[in-house]
Amino acid sequence: MDYLRNKELLNFDLNVRNVGKASIESPLKLSRVMNDDVANFVTDDERILAVNTFDEMNKWLSKEKTIPSFEKAGPRNKIYFKPGDTISAVVTCGGLCPGLNSVIRALVYMNYYRYRNRITYGIKYGYEGFIDKYDHAIMNLTPDVVENIHKIGGTILGSSRGEQDVCAIVDKLVKLRVNILYTIGGDGTLRGSKAISDEIKKRNLKIAVISIPKTIDNDIAYIDKSFGSETAFSKACDAIDAAHVEAKGAFNGIGIVKVMGRSSGFIAANATIASNDVNFCLIPEVPFDLDGEKGFLNALKQRLLKSNHAVILVAEGAGQNYFENLEKRYDASGNEKLHDIGLFLKDKIKEYLAKENIPTSIKYIDPSYIIRSTEPTPNDSIFCLQLAQRAVHAGMAGKSDIVIGYYNGEFIHLPVEVAVSKRKVLDPEGEVWLSVLEATGQPMSFKN
Amino acid sequence: MDYLRNKELLNFDLNVRNVGKASIESPLKLSRVMNDDVANFVTDDERILAVNTFDEMNKWLSKEKTIPSFEKAGPRNKIYFKPGDTISAVVTCGGLCPGLNSVIRALVYMNYYRYRNRITYGIKYGYEGFIDKYDHAIMNLTPDVVENIHKIGGTILGSSRGEQDVCAIVDKLVKLRVNILYTIGGDGTLRGSKAISDEIKKRNLKIAVISIPKTIDNDIAYIDKSFGSETAFSKACDAIDAAHVEAKGAFNGIGIVKVMGRSSGFIAANATIASNDVNFCLIPEVPFDLDGEKGFLNALKQRLLKSNHAVILVAEGAGQNYFENLEKRYDASGNEKLHDIGLFLKDKIKEYLAKENIPTSIKYIDPSYIIRSTEPTPNDSIFCLQLAQRAVHAGMAGKSDIVIGYYNGEFIHLPVEVAVSKRKVLDPEGEVWLSVLEATGQPMSFKN
Amino acid sequence: MDYLRNKELLNFDLNVRNVGKASIESPLKLSRVMNDDVANFVTDDERILAVNTFDEMNKWLSKEKTIPSFEKAGPRNKIYFKPGDTISAVVTCGGLCPGLNSVIRALVYMNYYRYRNRITYGIKYGYEGFIDKYDHAIMNLTPDVVENIHKIGGTILGSSRGEQDVCAIVDKLVKLRVNILYTIGGDGTLRGSKAISDEIKKRNLKIAVISIPKTIDNDIAYIDKSFGSETAFSKACDAIDAAHVEAKGAFNGIGIVKVMGRSSGFIAANATIASNDVNFCLIPEVPFDLDGEKGFLNALKQRLLKSNHAVILVAEGAGQNYFENLEKRYDASGNEKLHDIGLFLKDKIKEYLAKENIPTSIKYIDPSYIIRSTEPTPNDSIFCLQLAQRAVHAGMAGKSDIVIGYYNGEFIHLPVEVAVSKRKVLDPEGEVWLSVLEATGQPMSFKN
Amino acid sequence: MDYLRNKELLNFDLNVRNVGKASIESPLKLSRVMNDDVANFVTDDERILAVNTFDEMNKWLSKEKTIPSFEKAGPRNKIYFKPGDTISAVVTCGGLCPGLNSVIRALVYMNYYRYRNRITYGIKYGYEGFIDKYDHAIMNLTPDVVENIHKIGGTILGSSRGEQDVCAIVDKLVKLRVNILYTIGGDGTLRGSKAISDEIKKRNLKIAVISIPKTIDNDIAYIDKSFGSETAFSKACDAIDAAHVEAKGAFNGIGIVKVMGRSSGFIAANATIASNDVNFCLIPEVPFDLDGEKGFLNALKQRLLKSNHAVILVAEGAGQNYFENLEKRYDASGNEKLHDIGLFLKDKIKEYLAKENIPTSIKYIDPSYIIRSTEPTPNDSIFCLQLAQRAVHAGMAGKSDIVIGYYNGEFIHLPVEVAVSKRKVLDPEGEVWLSVLEATGQPMSFKN
Repeated sequence: MDYLRNKELLNFDLNVRNVGKASIESPLKLSRVMNDDVANFVTDDERILAVNTFDEMNKWLSKEKTIPSFEKAGPRNKIYFKPGDTISAVVTCGGLCPGLNSVIRALVYMNYYRYRNRITYGIKYGYEGFIDKYDHAIMNLTPDVVENIHKIGGTILGSSRGEQDVCAIVDKLVKLRVNILYTIGGDGTLRGSKAISDEIKKRNLKIAVISIPKTIDNDIAYIDKSFGSETAFSKACDAIDAAHVEAKGAFNGIGIVKVMGRSSGFIAANATIASNDVNFCLIPEVPFDLDGEKGFLNALKQRLLKSNHAVILVAEGAGQNYFENLEKRYDASGNEKLHDIGLFLKDKIKEYLAKENIPTSIKYIDPSYIIRSTEPTPNDSIFCLQLAQRAVHAGMAGKSDIVIGYYNGEFIHLPVEVAVSKRKVLDPEGEVWLSVLEATGQPMSFKN
Repeated sequence: MDYLRNKELLNFDLNVRNVGKASIESPLKLSRVMNDDVANFVTDDERILAVNTFDEMNKWLSKEKTIPSFEKAGPRNKIYFKPGDTISAVVTCGGLCPGLNSVIRALVYMNYYRYRNRITYGIKYGYEGFIDKYDHAIMNLTPDVVENIHKIGGTILGSSRGEQDVCAIVDKLVKLRVNILYTIGGDGTLRGSKAISDEIKKRNLKIAVISIPKTIDNDIAYIDKSFGSETAFSKACDAIDAAHVEAKGAFNGIGIVKVMGRSSGFIAANATIASNDVNFCLIPEVPFDLDGEKGFLNALKQRLLKSNHAVILVAEGAGQNYFENLEKRYDASGNEKLHDIGLFLKDKIKEYLAKENIPTSIKYIDPSYIIRSTEPTPNDSIFCLQLAQRAVHAGMAGKSDIVIGYYNGEFIHLPVEVAVSKRKVLDPEGEVWLSVLEATGQPMSFKN
Repeated sequence: MDYLRNKELLNFDLNVRNVGKASIESPLKLSRVMNDDVANFVTDDERILAVNTFDEMNKWLSKEKTIPSFEKAGPRNKIYFKPGDTISAVVTCGGLCPGLNSVIRALVYMNYYRYRNRITYGIKYGYEGFIDKYDHAIMNLTPDVVENIHKIGGTILGSSRGEQDVCAIVDKLVKLRVNILYTIGGDGTLRGSKAISDEIKKRNLKIAVISIPKTIDNDIAYIDKSFGSETAFSKACDAIDAAHVEAKGAFNGIGIVKVMGRSSGFIAANATIASNDVNFCLIPEVPFDLDGEKGFLNALKQRLLKSNHAVILVAEGAGQNYFENLEKRYDASGNEKLHDIGLFLKDKIKEYLAKENIPTSIKYIDPSYIIRSTEPTPNDSIFCLQLAQRAVHAGMAGKSDIVIGYYNGEFIHLPVEVAVSKRKVLDPEGEVWLSVLEATGQPMSFKN
Repeated sequence: MDYLRNKELLNFDLNVRNVGKASIESPLKLSRVMNDDVANFVTDDERILAVNTFDEMNKWLSKEKTIPSFEKAGPRNKIYFKPGDTISAVVTCGGLCPGLNSVIRALVYMNYYRYRNRITYGIKYGYEGFIDKYDHAIMNLTPDVVENIHKIGGTILGSSRGEQDVCAIVDKLVKLRVNILYTIGGDGTLRGSKAISDEIKKRNLKIAVISIPKTIDNDIAYIDKSFGSETAFSKACDAIDAAHVEAKGAFNGIGIVKVMGRSSGFIAANATIASNDVNFCLIPEVPFDLDGEKGFLNALKQRLLKSNHAVILVAEGAGQNYFENLEKRYDASGNEKLHDIGLFLKDKIKEYLAKENIPTSIKYIDPSYIIRSTEPTPNDSIFCLQLAQRAVHAGMAGKSDIVIGYYNGEFIHLPVEVAVSKRKVLDPEGEVWLSVLEATGQPMSFKN
């Protein structure tokens, strides 16, 4: 984190909207004082600093009125919705991500066992599930139904991409008497949640909308990590292992692995460090030349001459500049369809090494959906559970228009506008990329 | 097994060639009698029947002089090569397969600890390693070197495809004073081993050539299973899980997985039964129509209408008839390069369902090298170790021109000519395919 | 397999009892002829030989009237019970074993999708579930209920040990209008099944009883392998890895692992070969001395002096002779409670090495229930599915009083009396133990 | 984190000792400016705040001169030791922990490839390896030697417990011409490192001592997490799964799992949240009554009556007050040997439920060494690599008497005296314990 980048936070109101005044006693038996060795309620005054270094703090203190900070998530002493009688709905949208079922399960358990709410509707196939014409069934999620779902990847609710009519969605929420809507999804889903909430406010309804950000690419702004991303890079290590084994299995063998990462290289970078067998890591944030003395192809050649094998890990969004002349295509969520940088590299390398008279054997691996359809690692499971617990606390307290975020080691309430204000990218001057450079030994830059 | 198919065995001499008379006492302290509760030496007279049913036996007994049988593998009381002084070389050829390192490790341990031979040469990058111009180093494999290699996929020796000059190979064997050559590879490698052995015989050398058949497709004739194939279909289950999760994650979701299997569907069939989540399994042995009422596309449509999702597993060699008009291409081993049936199916399904106005979401997964580069399962590890143990027993006893096979529950010495006489395919009337049909519920046939 | 041991089979009638004449056409669309490339029905005449070597065959042919053989399992053309209307019940008894849920799931799927039977009752907590006083609910197992259970260890039905009143059980079967009872359990359960069947016959009822033998120890007679045992030894490898790591982590480190195996050492022996890191494997079938020059303790000492670490794998039933003077105790199934040979060895080794002035560090690992509560490996999953498929074929055909066995590479109908006639043990003169000796390098015997 | 607890930090000098003036140019090609998109050197002025909330910050600002902060770890522009010529030694002490080999490997790679130092000595079996009388070999760790060790648990160096003569250790460092000593170990090892460093200073030698804290219990003060602890609780989930399966496998089944955690419950608490199947989690930090209405036994009984099964996870150090009257015993590291709370609970529960006439079946699982001997998870691997990278940067820069810590999301240089000043425990008022309470539903307290 650094002062310059955090300055953008001044552009936002970081306070959280409440559906109404929280005046009902929480059914949870927590403490209100510190140091009695009993877990505590959290108050709205507890705020998490947006800085973590001495320098940044001092720059703020000398120049600005207040250091930006976020409302801390957690159970509130006074809540807005009536425990036992609150009806919730949960919907999962966009591409699959490890941990979706863990989040769903924990939402249901929290509702059922902690706040004694018996009804948590499961909306099928994303926002489609609210729209009558699709005719998707609506599930009632009880502990029995969700007991073992955390052992399985994906989402038992199914998902879909794209927007649906906001008025129709709110009509259905009213019809189902829903008090709290939990949406789990990425950028587009969060914008959709905002639109739903705006319609709710317009109608003066008392429905809270709480979002849990889902992005396997870990690219939501002002959130240190998102659920599923650890599992994704962990699972990617299997493909890297395979590429490494293949690369060593042939003279001048080359293994290329492509992983997710449309505009950010978190999966690629973390998988590189975790596996420790990658020699070249290419990500969208760090452009590279192919040709020329400092270009990637020459660096690869030098590596082969020295070590007789090489492993290349490339994020799908890297090097898209090489396709600039091609026509753009889009998916149902409105995301641009990327061109296949993995196959492109494979062809370029083959051609280059043939020209240089260097025998090689190139193996290309695209683990694709295997990475995102897996069940979460134990550490990711913890994160899913903690997000869901705090989402239900926030919802029952009557908070709305927020995502449950994680920043500076704490769970926070982040206004949804802030979360969608920009995409997070990997900082080439940060700790993770430094570790990548040190682990791979690749040059600081492939630019001539 | 059935009588008709086993009749082909009459075309072969199933007796095993010996390099010379085995007259040296084995250093192993085994028993020569049954029922003393001490493990036994095996004699050349012990033979494994090629039949396992009453009917087959009776047909042979009534019509033929003798039922075909195979020499049983195992430690011999009298051996040909001098324990402690025998020099071996081991080479791995062709594509990677789970368990290669386990076989190498067990060969070295057997040589070193049981027969006290200190030198087991590791030849690098397949038959290339024998040829001077490639300038590959020759390793000396001791227990220290191979101690942990079974935890890693691939082969520490590296591999390559294609033939090399047989005379040069034998020259190098002579130069290294090799007594026993262990070759690990597929069809092509076994033919190569035969050619090497022929050259050895021509020169009247006393060098034994023992092969361990490697085929991830499990398609070597007269061998019930080959090492690595269990691991391969086990690992394929990960990809099927992902496909299943993806298929259920969208309305009318379809997951397609392509697995290895050039001319035989063992991996596809076994992975289908093991995962129990596949709805359609397509293999080279069972041709299918796409169109028409009984065709695959209509069956898929009916499945979607009923269950709203489907998982398809296709062996790479299935449906190659759909590419008959395209030009043929070959790899360095002389294998024909297959066309991508997975992508072909994806396109055909997409087009068909669009025409039928059925919304869908198709996810295609090609786990490719991930499946073959993994370390072996424990059960496969056992098999690797047992093959290697018997290979060293055979080599030290002076056997030659054989592969170590597994038939009717026993390890056998199978003459290499028999092993390469044809390719094994999955029997559409056998137990495995029946289980596939019952597990998937797919029709007996997709032929109109 | 050898002639002497198979001679015992002459003591038994290997023919299978039928509840009545099978006269209903099977709903399965299989072929009745070979070589039409369509999977076939199996006839009662197809029999699997009890021998697999030339020698054995000849000994039988020269001395006896007929070689013993078993009825082959599989789908019958004519069946006894009416497809669509047959009611089944399934019960799981005794200790947990990997694969129970896979067997249950496949029974349900076969009933539901292949024979169109809508009712498969799940009896809870073993035979207790038939007895009113326990008041356990009875489940109706449909595909929905069992869809994901194969991903979870244990049995969704629960289990219990011990006998229950046979008359009450049959009363309940009658009340539920059960046609086929599937029992899954070990020795005791199979005897119970026989008793139930005898009572059924006494009452002249048309209820078939089919058993699927469950023994993690793999010790059912005349059955080559039982489900779950591969998973068990595979999982045991984790504990051996830990023991090996711990042994190498300290000077003269010793890792001891205890695994299941009351009277047979299959898990221990297979885990030894699979892991390839065990130095001493002790099993019930091969007694050992502790003291004396050839005793185990001296061998261990020599190993430490040479290699500075050792891994010991001991089956729980090994060395029970060392506790002969202690009082015997029994569990609810009537099995004798074993004394802890692992802790005994740990203490003896510690004492001995202290006396010999050899510093050491001993780590004892008892993975216990971790091994049996896990989900099955893919290969074991296949086996579970195949057993269950054949069980339902047998049941629908009106077979009774049998277990579904696996012998000489084929699935068979084995009369339950034969299965419980004795316990199978590991043959010290067989292939597996030979591989253990060669993999560990331990002496042929620890007897002075 | 809260103000009151962080106040203790004022008792310490948080500045870091340097062996001498760092005046050699670093061989690393990093940037010295921000915002040029090239990774940066870190300066000694960059300091990480010990607070992360607005409130804490304000309390410090209003009352104290400066908020405590830590020197940030990372590559320095000017270093003290000569790259290419620096000799290092690495030693691992105490019990095994996942990730030791990953740390060793990364230390060697950083030395070899980044700072071009060819000699990294591996000291065998902990501090013993420095002492002549033990006669342990000294390894030279090159990339070849350590290439695959991260796939294997434990430490290739071996380890030992207990202190050794500090003078003899420094003598050996001098004899080997070691410039930097890396010690990896727990509390005792860190104290030993301090003693070695004190002797070095006394002799006025220029040897740096850098420690990487190893504590599977995660109980080192002022360090948010230590390597291996994530892997430990992840692996513990296997045992919990088994306990859950066993508990559900019998009527009123109870599964008890004991995990590591001498004085802190991090493994138990995290495994509880990760697995999400634990009903009762008992840790050293939260004492419990067994008897009485609010006691643990009554709560367990109520659970059984409602749900018919229960899973209990207990940290080994929990409830040690129940053994207060027993004699105390100690291991070679001087740690008190704990009494077995798992077996104690099993007996107490059995006795209590028998008295209450509630049938049950209790299964006790102690995964013990299986948890600590495993290889690290990918996320833990990243952490190991990052610790080792920063350790080498610190060593080459001439820092000494520090541990590489992790605090508030950043890697820091923590003076070793601060790290050993007290043991970290789990805060019963913190986020983790709150999640445990919400996940299990267990009462806030078992105290009457």
